[in-house]
Amino acid sequence: MRVFIAGMDGYLGWSLAQYLTARGHEVAGADVFFRRQWVEEMGSWSATPIRLMKERLQAFKEHYGKEISFWEGDLRDYDLVEKILREFQPDAIVHFGECPSAPYSMVDVHHAVFVQTNNITTTFNLLFAMRNIRPDAHLVKLGTMGEYGTPNVDIPEGFFEIEFRGRKDRLSFPRQAGSWYHWSKVHGSNNIMFASNIWGLRATDIMQGVVFGTRINEMGDDERLLSRLDFDQAFGTAINRFCCQAVIGHPLTPFGKGHQRRGFLPLRDSMQCLTLALENPARAGEYRVFNQFEEVYDITELALKVQKVAGELGLNVEVRNLENPRKEQEEHYYKPDHQHLFDLGYQPMHDVEAEMRIMLQDLMKYRDRIEAKREALIPDVRWDGRRKKVEFLETEQALT
Amino acid sequence: MRVFIAGMDGYLGWSLAQYLTARGHEVAGADVFFRRQWVEEMGSWSATPIRLMKERLQAFKEHYGKEISFWEGDLRDYDLVEKILREFQPDAIVHFGECPSAPYSMVDVHHAVFVQTNNITTTFNLLFAMRNIRPDAHLVKLGTMGEYGTPNVDIPEGFFEIEFRGRKDRLSFPRQAGSWYHWSKVHGSNNIMFASNIWGLRATDIMQGVVFGTRINEMGDDERLLSRLDFDQAFGTAINRFCCQAVIGHPLTPFGKGHQRRGFLPLRDSMQCLTLALENPARAGEYRVFNQFEEVYDITELALKVQKVAGELGLNVEVRNLENPRKEQEEHYYKPDHQHLFDLGYQPMHDVEAEMRIMLQDLMKYRDRIEAKREALIPDVRWDGRRKKVEFLETEQALT
Repeated sequence: MRVFIAGMDGYLGWSLAQYLTARGHEVAGADVFFRRQWVEEMGSWSATPIRLMKERLQAFKEHYGKEISFWEGDLRDYDLVEKILREFQPDAIVHFGECPSAPYSMVDVHHAVFVQTNNITTTFNLLFAMRNIRPDAHLVKLGTMGEYGTPNVDIPEGFFEIEFRGRKDRLSFPRQAGSWYHWSKVHGSNNIMFASNIWGLRATDIMQGVVFGTRINEMGDDERLLSRLDFDQAFGTAINRFCCQAVIGHPLTPFGKGHQRRGFLPLRDSMQCLTLALENPARAGEYRVFNQFEEVYDITELALKVQKVAGELGLNVEVRNLENPRKEQEEHYYKPDHQHLFDLGYQPMHDVEAEMRIMLQDLMKYRDRIEAKREALIPDVRWDGRRKKVEFLETEQALT
Repeated sequence: MRVFIAGMDGYLGWSLAQYLTARGHEVAGADVFFRRQWVEEMGSWSATPIRLMKERLQAFKEHYGKEISFWEGDLRDYDLVEKILREFQPDAIVHFGECPSAPYSMVDVHHAVFVQTNNITTTFNLLFAMRNIRPDAHLVKLGTMGEYGTPNVDIPEGFFEIEFRGRKDRLSFPRQAGSWYHWSKVHGSNNIMFASNIWGLRATDIMQGVVFGTRINEMGDDERLLSRLDFDQAFGTAINRFCCQAVIGHPLTPFGKGHQRRGFLPLRDSMQCLTLALENPARAGEYRVFNQFEEVYDITELALKVQKVAGELGLNVEVRNLENPRKEQEEHYYKPDHQHLFDLGYQPMHDVEAEMRIMLQDLMKYRDRIEAKREALIPDVRWDGRRKKVEFLETEQALT
């Protein structure tokens, strides 16, 4: 299968290029390297010493014996997107080309506008180029479980049977996103659903949980093949941040009461799931939604797991709750479905602590890089609009 | 009350400026005159000979004895928006500053991107400027009944009690918009709902039905005070278009089977309803949704009414169905609630045929202007992406 990856320089993009190539698919990619700039703007860098794309592609060729077509450019430029689809003629398009950070979108009006217009425009360009050039291609779009928020009812996969005043319909499940970024993903989901409906496009919208992990097996021991791993307030996510904190002896920092519940999955499971979606494409005109995560965890439960595994490796760290910079529920009901990927054959990796051990061992090599950007670990972007570092909470929170 | 109208040069904006001023409110406005350009791009112009803003403001001063502060500029420029709020210190902001056309948004990728990014950016700029400068002001945002689409269940006003697998919550009612423009309104509604939630802003989101009418009483006989009245495929709406067609002897043109059902309201009712929302503002942190229309009509029923009233004025016209350029249901269930405005005291005008008579009499003066742009009456922007004029349907449709 010919797969075009929009945003191939990112955490998931660079991993997926390798995973798919190892399975015999033909991959091409594009990126404008915004992610590197955004993380730098947040005062940080990747914990793993990622290389320039030129070196990455060289390593890729040596390791996999294959060249990747790569376009450096901004996918907000429609002509570029059409050119890529015309030249590469993909069977599938994986869209990782959006800005993926909630805090980054909350910095100020300019960041809010940038994140939403960037994400909407890149998705429009892909949809129109598909319609015009490759109408049978399959779009796999990265959304987020964060589109749903934390309703007090179960969360289905995208759609539900509504019964209202005695009549019935099948409608999109209401979204309650928690940041301008998360809402940009909702806007994108709505746009893709409509494009499938009017143009008969095939689309899979991935409501992905929080991904963690430093590697997939395919990367082997070549450091040049490692994917990026962010730990700053804006682009780092829970387990990845906790592991980076642990290796420099920084407290692990749940926000507020710390009982937010979210779906999580390891990087290797994410690759497996995305590949299942690609190898079992949506039908023409079908817009389907996959809730993509392995299991739901409480944030504090995860911090305690990282603390335990780190301790076994001789890294002793505290868990200390931080003032919550976000406005969100800190204790809530959370029960999302995630059956569609199991139906396609998803085999979860399951051993979270084993994955944390691999991560900590990988990250210990890059302790100095994390230490150098230690300041980036404590959030200062607040949902109320202030830019002010949050404080450690005075009384130790109940941790279980 | 001090009311700032974003998009004051438009159909509703220019009317509301007068309606509010006549009621003793202090009005200011801004516009960049995009609407005039868009209509020109669609090969048309306003049936009423609208004047330049300078002349409009002069007539306004003569008629109402008051000056309006007016800023010419693009509300996508955040600094301008902040400057206006700082200088005028509004108690309320009415946001008419979005591009309001479904067909315009469906022209091609550039129009889709323009409409959604313009609409999202202007709304963001108003929300952030409110938060930063006037956090107690009340935002009245023009949405559309088209956000809901045509579900097979009743449509509540914005929110509904969901019962799902034995648990309950109050959630936003799922939207099923029918064009990139309509989706831009959904995106805006979502963004405003979130801003109210995190920043405590007051907001009323108006899901307005299709407005018709050439005047409000306050305009009197001064032609310079008339609002615009569009009849082209992109900016004209059902009854307004039918009346313009009638005065030049052009067939009245429902699309497809012609049994689409929509909520409608006269321009004077729209003014009354918007003023009720303004004079009864939302509470701090409240995001409320009003379904704003008088009554639901079948499109063919309205065409027959225009035909009848036109006949009484000596204008004999056929009703001839056109191929539908859109993808939409042409026969469907439709039962939206609209109680909130009645609870605030909305007194509907009710006599649709009397309003049509006024419109036809007004428009007969501008017969030449409509005739000159006759070509703009037949759509060529199709939802499937082709740009090709639709044809009259061969067999006459059943009309009742």
